[in-house]
Amino acid sequence: MSEGSHPHGLATAELKMTTVNRQLILQSRPKGMLAPGDLQLKEARLPELKDRQALARVKYLSIDPTMRVWMAGDSYLPAVAIGEVMRAFGFAEIVESRHPDYKKVDRVTGLTGLQDYVVVDSSVKQSFQKVPKIPFVSDTVFLGTLGINGLTAYFGMEIAQPKKGETLVVSAAAGATGSIAGQIGKIRGCRVVGIAGTDEKCNWIRKELGFDAAVNYKHTDWKAKLAAAVPNGIDIDFENVGGEIMNAVLDLMNLHGRVILCGLISGYTKEDPSLASFGTVLVKRLRVEGFIILDYAPRFMEAATQLGQWKMFGKIKDHETIVEGLERVPDAINMLFTGGNTGKLIVKV
Amino acid sequence: MSEGSHPHGLATAELKMTTVNRQLILQSRPKGMLAPGDLQLKEARLPELKDRQALARVKYLSIDPTMRVWMAGDSYLPAVAIGEVMRAFGFAEIVESRHPDYKKVDRVTGLTGLQDYVVVDSSVKQSFQKVPKIPFVSDTVFLGTLGINGLTAYFGMEIAQPKKGETLVVSAAAGATGSIAGQIGKIRGCRVVGIAGTDEKCNWIRKELGFDAAVNYKHTDWKAKLAAAVPNGIDIDFENVGGEIMNAVLDLMNLHGRVILCGLISGYTKEDPSLASFGTVLVKRLRVEGFIILDYAPRFMEAATQLGQWKMFGKIKDHETIVEGLERVPDAINMLFTGGNTGKLIVKV
Repeated sequence: MSEGSHPHGLATAELKMTTVNRQLILQSRPKGMLAPGDLQLKEARLPELKDRQALARVKYLSIDPTMRVWMAGDSYLPAVAIGEVMRAFGFAEIVESRHPDYKKVDRVTGLTGLQDYVVVDSSVKQSFQKVPKIPFVSDTVFLGTLGINGLTAYFGMEIAQPKKGETLVVSAAAGATGSIAGQIGKIRGCRVVGIAGTDEKCNWIRKELGFDAAVNYKHTDWKAKLAAAVPNGIDIDFENVGGEIMNAVLDLMNLHGRVILCGLISGYTKEDPSLASFGTVLVKRLRVEGFIILDYAPRFMEAATQLGQWKMFGKIKDHETIVEGLERVPDAINMLFTGGNTGKLIVKV
Repeated sequence: MSEGSHPHGLATAELKMTTVNRQLILQSRPKGMLAPGDLQLKEARLPELKDRQALARVKYLSIDPTMRVWMAGDSYLPAVAIGEVMRAFGFAEIVESRHPDYKKVDRVTGLTGLQDYVVVDSSVKQSFQKVPKIPFVSDTVFLGTLGINGLTAYFGMEIAQPKKGETLVVSAAAGATGSIAGQIGKIRGCRVVGIAGTDEKCNWIRKELGFDAAVNYKHTDWKAKLAAAVPNGIDIDFENVGGEIMNAVLDLMNLHGRVILCGLISGYTKEDPSLASFGTVLVKRLRVEGFIILDYAPRFMEAATQLGQWKMFGKIKDHETIVEGLERVPDAINMLFTGGNTGKLIVKV
């Protein structure tokens, strides 16, 4: 765009300020951490507003781990395409409007993308929420505590159904979501233990936020400290990290505990196959339940009666593979792992 | 024990038959598949019956994958100790009784262990259930369809809460539990697809048991065939296998699907860290739920109101790490993965 071709003539400098939109474009999908050039700053010209559109100046951008997921590939949202403005939540102020729902100085949050200006309209891809001006409260609260992190902590803790006196462990506990999830745990009457990566963070969540204990996972003896911090075991894991940290928490869980898979940040910058399946569980909002039949012993008779009826009426058929001789049990056990049996495997003694 | 020291003199041969109890003793914890010698056949002398004890002759032993778990270490039950009779479910007939609840020819199922005879008493470790004689039904049904496998399939499918028209996938579908779980799925009105390891097994579950489709995971194109067999995706995974098979199923799950972790047989004979966490989920009967905040959009206002109140009354505190400049977003994103921020990370544009 040459200056000479600009149609407005006067006040070029001011016009230039408002017609140029700096954008961070996704140029390449990062491997591991973001490398220089994965996101590239480019200047675009602001589009002319159409009817039912408004222009908003982005003031704050929310930086969230999930952005790394959006860069990697399709997940719960389609991947950001190469060459597109990188997706991000932001806080913006309307500076010009041809939309009846938005007027100048209205303030909105939504998927602004990483750019100076965003066009606000009714397209499905961009839904913006107007937010009020609250005295003594910073605008940025609508990106954090009253925004995506607060909401995530709130609904995650709703799924967790914490009961008074239960023990909640939160990983990435000094992060935007974890710090609120833990405080909601305190409001609900839980013993709350946070896991974080520096002593300063641990101090903050314990002394300022009121967590009962905090464990720095960079200390070599952190697993022992975590165990000591949960004398009654762990009932709820509000999981933001995955991998080794999640496994250490799982090892201390009580029977019938609940794991709220909110994030798996330890896996976002590396290819870890052990995290892949939990990633699917998270992204597809699956519910995975482990169960052991012995817990149902009081209801065995009820179930056997139903099974017996089904068998009698031919609704359930079975097949047995019978091996003769006590001495052949070891071979029979191995048959299970090589696929040697069809249906029930039995040794006749 | 020398013959000469035997107190009864007459009918030595017959007495010998009934005083010797062959037992399979756990001699070493297997690595991978069972090796010769992990279980060793030894002869023990039958103990004298005490008051409130009965002696049962083991007729059938149930061979189950979970036995391999019991050999490996503590899980939902303590590991079988080295030198002990290996734990197993079995079907036995009372041959002698000094217990008021059991009389000769009564038939029982329970943890008989891998041996010819078991002493039945009221000790907590050994609880035996009397089973009836049913015309035209083999005794072994009490180990399979009306025993541990039928019960496991029944309660697992209860947790799955199948709805009419949903798609259920069962792995190890020609196994004792999987074959019944799939048939219960049919009874509940599901489309049922089984995964098994031979064409014969696939034919059996499809033609005899009425599964809608069956996929042989040993065919190279099995994942494509599985995808083709579930045109509406998968709502329920009745998981018996874990590992690669489970991951292929997870990839085809519908949003908000349910995974019933019943077994992870692919991991029982190998050390696979990617299975370890799911093993913990299974053994501890955990419920793992993935969630994505976007699903809760209709309730954002309700939650934000509550969060706002908590913030106003000081029940929730927050902290912001603010980075200035759109051009510094890439560094800011990387801060998330190196732990550079405390609380909410925001870029001021």
